[in-house]
Amino acid sequence: MAELEGNCIVGQSGGPTAVINASLAGVVEEALNHECIEEIYGSLNGVVGILNEDFIDLASESQQTIRGLRHTPGAALGTCRFQFKKHADYERALQVFQTHNIRYFFYIGDNESMATADKLNALAQESGYELRVIGIPKTVDNDIAATDHCPGYGSVIKHVATVVREMACDNDSIGQGDYVSILEVMGRNAGWIAAGAALAKRRDHPHDPPHLIYLPEVPFSSERFLDDVKRALSRERFCMIVASEGLVDSDGNYVALGSTSTDAFGHVQLGGTGEFLRSLVESRLGVSARSCKLGISQRSAIHCASKADVEEAYLVGQAAVLAAVEKGESGKMVTLLRGESDFYKAETGLVNLADVSEKTKAIPADWINDDGVSMNYPFVKYAQPLIAGEVNVPFENGLPNFVRVRGGKIDKLLQAYEL
Amino acid sequence: MAELEGNCIVGQSGGPTAVINASLAGVVEEALNHECIEEIYGSLNGVVGILNEDFIDLASESQQTIRGLRHTPGAALGTCRFQFKKHADYERALQVFQTHNIRYFFYIGDNESMATADKLNALAQESGYELRVIGIPKTVDNDIAATDHCPGYGSVIKHVATVVREMACDNDSIGQGDYVSILEVMGRNAGWIAAGAALAKRRDHPHDPPHLIYLPEVPFSSERFLDDVKRALSRERFCMIVASEGLVDSDGNYVALGSTSTDAFGHVQLGGTGEFLRSLVESRLGVSARSCKLGISQRSAIHCASKADVEEAYLVGQAAVLAAVEKGESGKMVTLLRGESDFYKAETGLVNLADVSEKTKAIPADWINDDGVSMNYPFVKYAQPLIAGEVNVPFENGLPNFVRVRGGKIDKLLQAYEL
Repeated sequence: MAELEGNCIVGQSGGPTAVINASLAGVVEEALNHECIEEIYGSLNGVVGILNEDFIDLASESQQTIRGLRHTPGAALGTCRFQFKKHADYERALQVFQTHNIRYFFYIGDNESMATADKLNALAQESGYELRVIGIPKTVDNDIAATDHCPGYGSVIKHVATVVREMACDNDSIGQGDYVSILEVMGRNAGWIAAGAALAKRRDHPHDPPHLIYLPEVPFSSERFLDDVKRALSRERFCMIVASEGLVDSDGNYVALGSTSTDAFGHVQLGGTGEFLRSLVESRLGVSARSCKLGISQRSAIHCASKADVEEAYLVGQAAVLAAVEKGESGKMVTLLRGESDFYKAETGLVNLADVSEKTKAIPADWINDDGVSMNYPFVKYAQPLIAGEVNVPFENGLPNFVRVRGGKIDKLLQAYEL
Repeated sequence: MAELEGNCIVGQSGGPTAVINASLAGVVEEALNHECIEEIYGSLNGVVGILNEDFIDLASESQQTIRGLRHTPGAALGTCRFQFKKHADYERALQVFQTHNIRYFFYIGDNESMATADKLNALAQESGYELRVIGIPKTVDNDIAATDHCPGYGSVIKHVATVVREMACDNDSIGQGDYVSILEVMGRNAGWIAAGAALAKRRDHPHDPPHLIYLPEVPFSSERFLDDVKRALSRERFCMIVASEGLVDSDGNYVALGSTSTDAFGHVQLGGTGEFLRSLVESRLGVSARSCKLGISQRSAIHCASKADVEEAYLVGQAAVLAAVEKGESGKMVTLLRGESDFYKAETGLVNLADVSEKTKAIPADWINDDGVSMNYPFVKYAQPLIAGEVNVPFENGLPNFVRVRGGKIDKLLQAYEL
């Protein structure tokens, strides 16, 4: 494989995870190992930064900062929800790459970002511009079909399961068979995060919370829900429920939309799934209930992240660079694989970006028990290794100490582009 | 001081904290040091357990379990919101104590529990039954006036400030001056927890979140709130807000009640303060906003607790036993004091239970800046030492490992009592 000399650029896209910056660190540190890579640029706010030539010089960051990325949540380069809308966007991106002699493009993102990267790769090939494009998966939602699991997922479920264990101690000290506790977690289209809460349940401890798990994969019925809660309360001191934000009824409508309200100004307001369930319990069963909504905090909780996840996030970043530089790959996304042996070890693979379906990967139906509200052993076996180990986030004055990339801006060489 | 021989009992009351069991451990381990104390009973569910003679034998627990209480959230003995309602309740309690030769009663709780302990102490004195009653403060709300601060408070604000720092990284990667992030925290009557979020702001970093803090101490006005948010967005990439659940308007009405709604069954539903603010921002400013509600999870977050808080919680438990046994004190509550020196060190004191006002301690007005939405240096100086140090919670298979007290039940000697 002939070495391709030039600059590389890396960007981050979509909702951040606790470990998305570990992938960034993996890219930067691996890129430094290869002489054919001259400059290491970071694109600010994903592909928006490419269109605007908003680049920073990542090689000039201190080693301390790059190391600190392994335990700094959020997307250090800034992220975007923006997707290229028109062909001119792709042409502009290619022009920017050519102008800055960028030969390697690493894009950390989810399904949609991979589609963008794929089209850009195709255009470069058509134009005869030698460019290597590798996608790096990330999403707390774990819904990218092409990979065994996604960096970001292990950390969010470790955090959620920890919160379940902790809240269970609190709930247990209050409940007398008359208390319902609801934890709303992320998951608009798939219930992977809510399912991960099942790890809080110890083996052979059937009374351990969570007692009920509600997933978008299982159509929601209020009557069945109320029956589930009553049954749980008859057995337990309290009923702990973990619910995906995106629960839908059998017609596919979000259930929380059933509880819309208008505020003082006549505007519609959504209370969220957790509040909807809480209201249902209190009004229909006359039982005291409380809900929590972890929201954004769950995907940034590096202080309770999975060491395995941080390491794998770093690994996929490294693997992206190795694939592009050493194997001359392009138009691929790095995947995580696991062997068939009982001893879990993550390895990386590659798939064509074009084969990264934009379709959401749902939880396999046969990992959900027949009751529809609990997970079975194959799921636990799948998820358990992903939460292994703890991350040592440095604390200073009682609080975690995060880094910021502050690298010098790269001069813009082109005229401004109308987004 | 003549030694008083007999049994001791300890109970827990009110909403649990992350460290309420550290106080329990302090009581048990210190009680074991004194030969005059024969049996060490735990009363299940606070004073309810006393009326029902629901006692367990804490001395028979393994040392491992008692040590594990220092990092197990919730109230290991179970808690109660129950207060003695009638004189007969006090008489029953005294009868139970006499029957079981209980001479020491340690009650871990908040203001209301101290009033109960005080009345029981008075009745024992009247009756000529020698009993020593010592209260041990706990509450995440930090609103007991008689003590410098309350065990439980340091841990909850360490957790909340950590979440603010983490969410800030996430928000910062998304915001372009057009994003509002809201964190609703506990605090029905006083804003101590929301105020504690101010610790997330580094000194000399005026752009650090939280950008706006809303406290029950400052009457809420929607118009002023919207102005605050607009001003923050003009300066920052995003606006991060921390709000107490119990915000009230100038007439003293909870603001979240303004956003009541009815669910599908016609029942009133409250969205909570965070959701109310989110709705206000989206509907009035047309800016994207998200809210989180940590709820119960914030008061059970031992995985992000303050080492100083755990140690002080243990210390007040110990001090209660020492005061009762060595000094013959009764009718007192242990307090935490700090010296005047710049080097923080917590010491314990005692106040009369009768002097523990049931009135909520609000944040001193001169610790709140004139803008009404930020805390000044005297507050930070007060709160900073309370979050010092991290707790090493043992993790097993990727999740925290908590203990449960499972001690043998003590035989009931009296007829059942009608609660």
